[in-house]
Amino acid sequence: MTLKTASILLAHGSSDPHWLAPFDQLLQRIRSSLTDPQARAELAYMELAEPSLQTQVKRLASEGYKRIDVLPLFFAAGRHLRKDVPAMLDELQQQLQQQDIEISIHLHTPIGLEPEVADAISQVVLRQMQ
Amino acid sequence: MTLKTASILLAHGSSDPHWLAPFDQLLQRIRSSLTDPQARAELAYMELAEPSLQTQVKRLASEGYKRIDVLPLFFAAGRHLRKDVPAMLDELQQQLQQQDIEISIHLHTPIGLEPEVADAISQVVLRQMQ
Repeated sequence: MTLKTASILLAHGSSDPHWLAPFDQLLQRIRSSLTDPQARAELAYMELAEPSLQTQVKRLASEGYKRIDVLPLFFAAGRHLRKDVPAMLDELQQQLQQQDIEISIHLHTPIGLEPEVADAISQVVLRQMQ
Repeated sequence: MTLKTASILLAHGSSDPHWLAPFDQLLQRIRSSLTDPQARAELAYMELAEPSLQTQVKRLASEGYKRIDVLPLFFAAGRHLRKDVPAMLDELQQQLQQQDIEISIHLHTPIGLEPEVADAISQVVLRQMQ
């Protein structure tokens, strides 16, 4: 049996719904492009908006997911991604273990540091400057 | 004579140098890719890091730039880009006008909303989910 796996797209969050809307659009786009019917994509915010990362991890754990990939929609890794999020995920894993729920959570590189995204940003800036 | 034009890449800013480093790398990459020897690219942070947007606009104005394009390295437009930055730019323009310095400042769409960047983000997420 394959390990039941889900991905959480993690954005910073904002109290402003205008800021949140493009992340919802991205989630819908990702979901509609997934070819594997078992694939599961969710969205979470680190602060200032719901659903939180904790809420999403607990929900997926309760649905039997055993591995969660957290994909940060950030340009770079600062304090949040280097300290706050790992600490949050450690604490969550411990809480779930105490309920006999074993789950592995993997925090990925911020999307902005991926070469394709960095290339696209650079190309758009150069075009805008012409 | 062509209007002397400069671009400022505007990032949110952070007190964490790890967060700032990729933005410096992007600026170096942009500068080394510019083919027009008159083209000028600078970087500014909205908060928590230097140089600030105000510092960069004033510096470019003092160097005789008459048009500044502000290109926000943001995923989406929230309160910062919809309210704080426009207010900051209006105030700066007024301050400069009082010194008889005429400058036009254009705030662009956040880079994350540009189709090439949104496409790249979507493709990377889909690849990471496979």
